[in-house]
Formats: sequence, C-alpha cells, structure tokens
Amino acid sequence: MSPRDIRVAFGKRVRELRMGLGLSQEELAGLHRNYIGGVERGERNIGLLNVDRLAAALNSRLSDLFSDL
Amino acid sequence: MSPRDIRVAFGKRVRELRMGLGLSQEELAGLHRNYIGGVERGERNIGLLNVDRLAAALNSRLSDLFSDL
Repeated sequence: MSPRDIRVAFGKRVRELRMGLGLSQEELAGLHRNYIGGVERGERNIGLLNVDRLAAALNSRLSDLFSDL
Repeated sequence: MSPRDIRVAFGKRVRELRMGLGLSQEELAGLHRNYIGGVERGERNIGLLNVDRLAAALNSRLSDLFSDL
C-alpha cells in the first residue's frame, strides 16, 4: 500500500463523518453494514454511484467527503 | 438515468477541467484515452483509485473535482 492510499483516507473520512452523526454502520441508509465496514477500513475501491449514496446517507456534500484528502 | 446522475455530472466536470488546461484526452497522463472518453460521457462508475489518478492528471484537488456536484 502506498503511503497515501485514497481508499484508506476516504474510509477514515467516512468513519469520522458517520461517528460525528452518532450513527452506527447499521444506521447508514441504503448500504449494507459489511460494505460500510470495508469502505471504512480502506478495503474497497468504491465507485461513484456508491460514493454518491454514501454522501446522501451522511448528509454530506461530495466536496466535504473529499476535502483535504 | 436519474435526473441527476453523479457519473454524468462528474464526467462533465472532468471535461471542463481538462479543456480548461488545454489538454486533449490523449494528454491526460496515466489513463487511456478511451477510458477518459467513457468517464467524460458519464458511462463509467469510476472507482476511488482512478478518481485519484484523474485528479493528479488534472492538477486538481479531489474536493474541486466534486465541488457543487
């Protein structure tokens, strides 16, 4: 894994936003808990469509999801 | 296709940024011209790793790539 892996950085951001909302992985609408877990651990090369669904579930703008990554 | 499809919106953004730099699809480093064409037409559910490569090729921050989409 490279020093800066976008999947890992993105996964950390997702976890931060989710926990900031006080939501469990189960409570993120429309995406399976196991899938969210994989994203948060940086194991998934998540595609645009799911990035978009995730932003909606996290009440976040896409640009906020990616800011400073 | 839904009224607002992230793939289409993202593809338009990529094209805008590329043309803003005066680059052809061929000149975007590290990604094949046909692939870039598919992204720009909103045909590809591009994953994080390629989004990150594309941002680098476009000299753009990820947050700029997604701002207001």
